[in-house]
Amino acid sequence: MTKLEQIYEGKAKKVFRTDDPAYCVVEYKDDATAFNGLKKGTILGKGAVNNRMTNLLMQMLEQQGIPTHFVKELSDRETVVKRVEIVPLEVIVRNISAGHFAQNYGVEEGIVFDEPTIEFSYKNDALGDPLINSYHARALKLATGEEIDTIVRLAFQVNEALKAFFLSVGIRLVDFKLEFGRTGDGTIVLADEISPDTCRLWDKDTNEKLDKDRFRRDLGHVESAYQEVMRRLLEKQP
Amino acid sequence: MTKLEQIYEGKAKKVFRTDDPAYCVVEYKDDATAFNGLKKGTILGKGAVNNRMTNLLMQMLEQQGIPTHFVKELSDRETVVKRVEIVPLEVIVRNISAGHFAQNYGVEEGIVFDEPTIEFSYKNDALGDPLINSYHARALKLATGEEIDTIVRLAFQVNEALKAFFLSVGIRLVDFKLEFGRTGDGTIVLADEISPDTCRLWDKDTNEKLDKDRFRRDLGHVESAYQEVMRRLLEKQP
Ligand SMILES: Nc1ncnc2c1ncn2[C@@H]1O[C@H](COP(=O)(O)OP(=O)(O)OP(=O)(O)O)[C@@H](O)[C@H]1O
Ligand SMILES: Nc1ncnc2c1ncn2[C@@H]1O[C@H](COP(=O)(O)OP(=O)(O)OP(=O)(O)O)[C@@H](O)[C@H]1O
Ligand SMILES: [Mg+2]
Ligand SMILES: [Mg+2]
Repeated sequence: MTKLEQIYEGKAKKVFRTDDPAYCVVEYKDDATAFNGLKKGTILGKGAVNNRMTNLLMQMLEQQGIPTHFVKELSDRETVVKRVEIVPLEVIVRNISAGHFAQNYGVEEGIVFDEPTIEFSYKNDALGDPLINSYHARALKLATGEEIDTIVRLAFQVNEALKAFFLSVGIRLVDFKLEFGRTGDGTIVLADEISPDTCRLWDKDTNEKLDKDRFRRDLGHVESAYQEVMRRLLEKQP
Repeated sequence: MTKLEQIYEGKAKKVFRTDDPAYCVVEYKDDATAFNGLKKGTILGKGAVNNRMTNLLMQMLEQQGIPTHFVKELSDRETVVKRVEIVPLEVIVRNISAGHFAQNYGVEEGIVFDEPTIEFSYKNDALGDPLINSYHARALKLATGEEIDTIVRLAFQVNEALKAFFLSVGIRLVDFKLEFGRTGDGTIVLADEISPDTCRLWDKDTNEKLDKDRFRRDLGHVESAYQEVMRRLLEKQP
């Protein structure tokens, strides 16, 4: 497999074509953005953490029967993944109130839900990634009903697996965002990344934030928070 | 049953206590508002149309097995209803794209969906009635899972009944908003109103708007549109 020209440059990753159309290479950057790109910065070493962490977690999920795009880590920042057609829905699972949920619904952060919640936003920058429900996603033909059922089932399975794993390293999984894609034969697989950019992670004992909220909210010690999560994961490799 | 003092004055109706705590009287006003109260006006005769129309349609729905708050029409603007605790969810059913749906998701008005959609907004003026899904509504304990299932089932039943009825008088039911409430014993019943204030109604042949969008969008002939809908309903009393 040879890494060929860049197909796409996103805010956090670059995507490259390979000589096999079924695969691509993703390269993780240190660039950080927040508030729909309004806030920009760099988190030194983030690319390497997010690459390693995503790959470790996706391999663990595969072992638990969850299909992912992961194929092979190439370097500290580069990974071969199955090239998929991304379903244009950001899938957000929440165990504890925080972020937009707390803001939009007028409740404090930190409320532990009786059961996890799931929500979608329509991945559409021009529209500002608006919240959308499964009826609307189907009406707009963003995904079929069957695909949405699969995505919901997989997302909750991912939540159970990640929640248990993070807890075993002293971290509460507050919420996270997933993306799913369709492979060549239409199979739905987990794609994109699982990292402190896409998860809210709070230390189990101190509730200290170990995720991108440190960058969003100028809390300081951003780099060391990412490194701390990585350190705990490596100590207890799945 | 005696009408006693006013309990609540909303934008479109007043609610009065009666000598029986299980009932109240609603009185329909001609006041019209739009855009969360930013636009204000009067639609002459609207109160009488909305009262009569709501009562006719709720009686038809009762005959089809859908429990409603309707008890007895007292006058052209006043009706006795079961007093309920309103579930703080606005329930919107859509058959055709229009309004916020078209705006938020960047599509034109008039797309006929393969299947109707349903969505909730959290009835909370301070928060601007934000869109909410059933997972979040449960997490916030706005309603139980069982209540939400009942509301979804009833809302789709209401849609089928109203769609067929309006079509029989030459009107396409584009979308509408319902409110549900809990009676003293916890039964979920359809409450509030069903009127050109709360439904988008398009003439089947000309697509002419026969609803509050004439007021919202300054299309003129607001009063006559409300009267026209009423005329058609009375011709074909359910
Ligand atoms: N396996 C995959 N195949 C193809 N595309 C993928 C795959 N995994 C992730 N992607 C896409 O690659 C891009 C990764 O770049 P990045 O995460 O930096 O994007 P972004 O700035 O978040 O923007 P956006 O997600 O809105 O495009 C995303 O568009 C993501 O949806
Ligand atoms: N059967 C019922 N028992 C008690 N309250 C009811 C019943 N039916 C409707 N209501 C409530 O009575 C009020 C009717 O007033 P109106 O429709 O003018 O309110 P509004 O201006 O739309 O404001 P809001 O719905 O946000 O309170 C609403 O709050 C509605 O939820
Ligand atoms: Mg991304
Ligand atoms: Mg109202």
